[in-house]
Amino acid sequence: MLMKTSSQSLTEQLSARFAERIRTRLLAPGARLPSVRQCAQQQGVSPSTVVAAYDQLLAEGLVEARKNRGFFVRETPASGADAGTRPPDSAPDAAAAAHEGGWSVAHWIARRPPASPVNATALIRGMFHQVSNKPQPGMGVLPPEWLESTFMAAAVRKVTSTRALHEFSLRYGEPLGDGGLRRALARKLAALSVPASPEQIITTVGATHALDIVSRSLLRPGDFVMVEEPGWAVEFARLTALGMRLLPMPRRPDGPDLEVMARYCEVHAPKLYVSVSVLHNPTGYCLSPGSAHRVLQLANQHGFHIVEDDTYSHIAPPHASRLCALDGLQRTIHVSGFAKILAPNWRVGFLAAHPSLIEQLLDTKLLGTLTTPALLEKALALCIEQGQLRRHAERIRTRLDAARSRSVKLALAAGCSFAAEPAGLFGWVDTGVDTDELAQRMLDEGYLLAPGALFHAERKPSTLMRINFATTQDAAFWRKYSELVRRG
Amino acid sequence: MLMKTSSQSLTEQLSARFAERIRTRLLAPGARLPSVRQCAQQQGVSPSTVVAAYDQLLAEGLVEARKNRGFFVRETPASGADAGTRPPDSAPDAAAAAHEGGWSVAHWIARRPPASPVNATALIRGMFHQVSNKPQPGMGVLPPEWLESTFMAAAVRKVTSTRALHEFSLRYGEPLGDGGLRRALARKLAALSVPASPEQIITTVGATHALDIVSRSLLRPGDFVMVEEPGWAVEFARLTALGMRLLPMPRRPDGPDLEVMARYCEVHAPKLYVSVSVLHNPTGYCLSPGSAHRVLQLANQHGFHIVEDDTYSHIAPPHASRLCALDGLQRTIHVSGFAKILAPNWRVGFLAAHPSLIEQLLDTKLLGTLTTPALLEKALALCIEQGQLRRHAERIRTRLDAARSRSVKLALAAGCSFAAEPAGLFGWVDTGVDTDELAQRMLDEGYLLAPGALFHAERKPSTLMRINFATTQDAAFWRKYSELVRRG
Repeated sequence: MLMKTSSQSLTEQLSARFAERIRTRLLAPGARLPSVRQCAQQQGVSPSTVVAAYDQLLAEGLVEARKNRGFFVRETPASGADAGTRPPDSAPDAAAAAHEGGWSVAHWIARRPPASPVNATALIRGMFHQVSNKPQPGMGVLPPEWLESTFMAAAVRKVTSTRALHEFSLRYGEPLGDGGLRRALARKLAALSVPASPEQIITTVGATHALDIVSRSLLRPGDFVMVEEPGWAVEFARLTALGMRLLPMPRRPDGPDLEVMARYCEVHAPKLYVSVSVLHNPTGYCLSPGSAHRVLQLANQHGFHIVEDDTYSHIAPPHASRLCALDGLQRTIHVSGFAKILAPNWRVGFLAAHPSLIEQLLDTKLLGTLTTPALLEKALALCIEQGQLRRHAERIRTRLDAARSRSVKLALAAGCSFAAEPAGLFGWVDTGVDTDELAQRMLDEGYLLAPGALFHAERKPSTLMRINFATTQDAAFWRKYSELVRRG
Repeated sequence: MLMKTSSQSLTEQLSARFAERIRTRLLAPGARLPSVRQCAQQQGVSPSTVVAAYDQLLAEGLVEARKNRGFFVRETPASGADAGTRPPDSAPDAAAAAHEGGWSVAHWIARRPPASPVNATALIRGMFHQVSNKPQPGMGVLPPEWLESTFMAAAVRKVTSTRALHEFSLRYGEPLGDGGLRRALARKLAALSVPASPEQIITTVGATHALDIVSRSLLRPGDFVMVEEPGWAVEFARLTALGMRLLPMPRRPDGPDLEVMARYCEVHAPKLYVSVSVLHNPTGYCLSPGSAHRVLQLANQHGFHIVEDDTYSHIAPPHASRLCALDGLQRTIHVSGFAKILAPNWRVGFLAAHPSLIEQLLDTKLLGTLTTPALLEKALALCIEQGQLRRHAERIRTRLDAARSRSVKLALAAGCSFAAEPAGLFGWVDTGVDTDELAQRMLDEGYLLAPGALFHAERKPSTLMRINFATTQDAAFWRKYSELVRRG
């Protein structure tokens, strides 16, 4: 909120707010600022205050004016954050070249028609950066207070006696990862009917790292990869950065669109299909057994691998169909982690794959990070073995079910409809308005949204958005939402 | 040692020994087994025992006989490790394709003329895999008992109270890395005359990860990269896996061969130079100020970046010249870690770079691992801030100086000469014999060597080897060494 009592003038406050968003890329290069009239109305200030604030941004080199079209964020803002260090004459060359090649999340995410008013880097930066103290509807994880437990700290204490620390800290450790954790994971996978020995498991720095290792090991630049659409922007960005070509695969309630998949196979001979079979992000869809069977038939017929990202397994319904279970890790690779259920910062994930792939996957891990830290792997193994993680997950599922039913009611009352049957952590909601624009305006109110464009490989604007059921039980959010949507 | 009293026959013991080496790639695909006569002499068994053992390996599909040339490790051994899981009909396709593209350490390292009797994957696997209980001359780190300390466990306890753990574990954490550690590192860098604010520092999963992030951010497949020769095999392997073209740069006592560098710049326009300026691995050379200045002139003139790997900074002589200090992180990127001085398994490293590069380097980190675990970063920050790490490093330097003088005497007495003035952790020793072959025979005695070929971009056989001064103070090793070298 802009406040008249502040030591800064309203103009200064307004220009500082825009400057901050440009710097943190909540407003991307090329994005259009609201019109003077709109902005004045939204912020409750006079048009002359807005004009003065925009002039200030112009003077700072952060925005440019385009005749009869308004103000736009400059493509390469003269970065205020870099002040004080003289940039070298030509050091940014390689940087620029790398960016042209699409090697940047921020730039990838920002790749939208330049006249578009929004940039959704917000969500990714927002994963790490608290926008306000309010519950954040766009977040991808559970709120920290949901994850609190007593057993986690006890497990850490158990593995950090001086002798234990010396034993595992003073050598590089096992290349595949801590043996105890791999044995615990093998048992966990067996319970999901995924057959994997501890020697078929490689621990990683979170599921993200596992997906990265798989891509780097199995693909070469220029390869075609099938990705789900809607799907997760970080996955699109990683594959693009590695030089891969994306084939967006429409995701239906029961699985991928098999006709499209068959056509892709014939035309492009893709090497990999990246799939969230269970509690798909953002829709919450779960793969049907029949669809799973036919996907595997296509994989065998056309010789592609499948990486199945099972990040939401801890909150998944029992007996969900998994490609890895049907296929027995023949052409499938299982990936998962513990950010959604235990501790996002621990960064412990893993992959399980066919024995014939393990050596090259392990080589990729060794070249990229050598080993991974055993301390957190050992603590996690304790949490799993003693059944505490399973009970913790049960409690969270119950709490999430209650939150989901509250959130769904509020969303419907606010005029939203659900584009997918509500399930799991996320709701895929139709608002009827451009969610890119809505996201930008809700930011002014301290709420981070996840607009639909973020889940589209080409960043196509959309009336859909993803909500986190744990953080949208709050009537205050929906009141503000309704107010802005009504105001239009 | 083969022992007659064992429950296995000598033939079984001998074939099991070779099978294990083939499986762990201490003997690479294409490597030739010793002749029957040689092997019988080396192992102290009858030629008929060797013939029976080789027949056994043949029956197991691990080796093949070539007419009049002897026995060779099969290129794709029918892997015993994979038994019990039926390989898919065509799953190895992508694996094979990726290997053709050079995406595997093991295969990269193994890329030698097939008749060559040795494979030096040994050293890399040996970093993680104890060959025997003896001190290992080929190891790249200090022995675990050297690294023991009381302050490390105390620091871990301090940051793992339940409240502290919840505070930093239940969110993703700071994308750049723990703020406290980055501030401590900025002060450490200032003491080395490298000017970096905490916002110019990104923490990583060890120095290896930092080097990986730099390569992925600044380079595109096909780019030319200057690497030092002799130099570290993992660096060659990583760049090759990323699709880069290596330009081996002869490393002289005072720095790179500047004439060669100038020629490379003119002909190939390289994008990056990867250098260990201080206590270069394997020679122990330190860059001279004059050479540093001229390297930077070339970098400015030809527009390449330099990544300076300062892994050995904790045991480095005071006032060593660093490119990053001269250049003030304009075109240079500083990389270092704590595996050599504190805890190899903690995997905490970092990079420091010009502010204009930070965003894209950070994006690469986020896409590859999201954040890094704060627990070990916070514990490390405590060890640095309280001066304990500095005092620990001083103690280790003193101990290493003593070890070095003992080791040098023993090496000279064993008939070695030093190809470089002994300094730091490693000695670069001329043995007068093929060190690939020597390494294979010393393995039989339970010693892992680091043959010169491992430090050569093309894996050229050499009479040089790298020794670790901390692990070669042992007269027993040098006696066995002399015996084998004399026996020829």
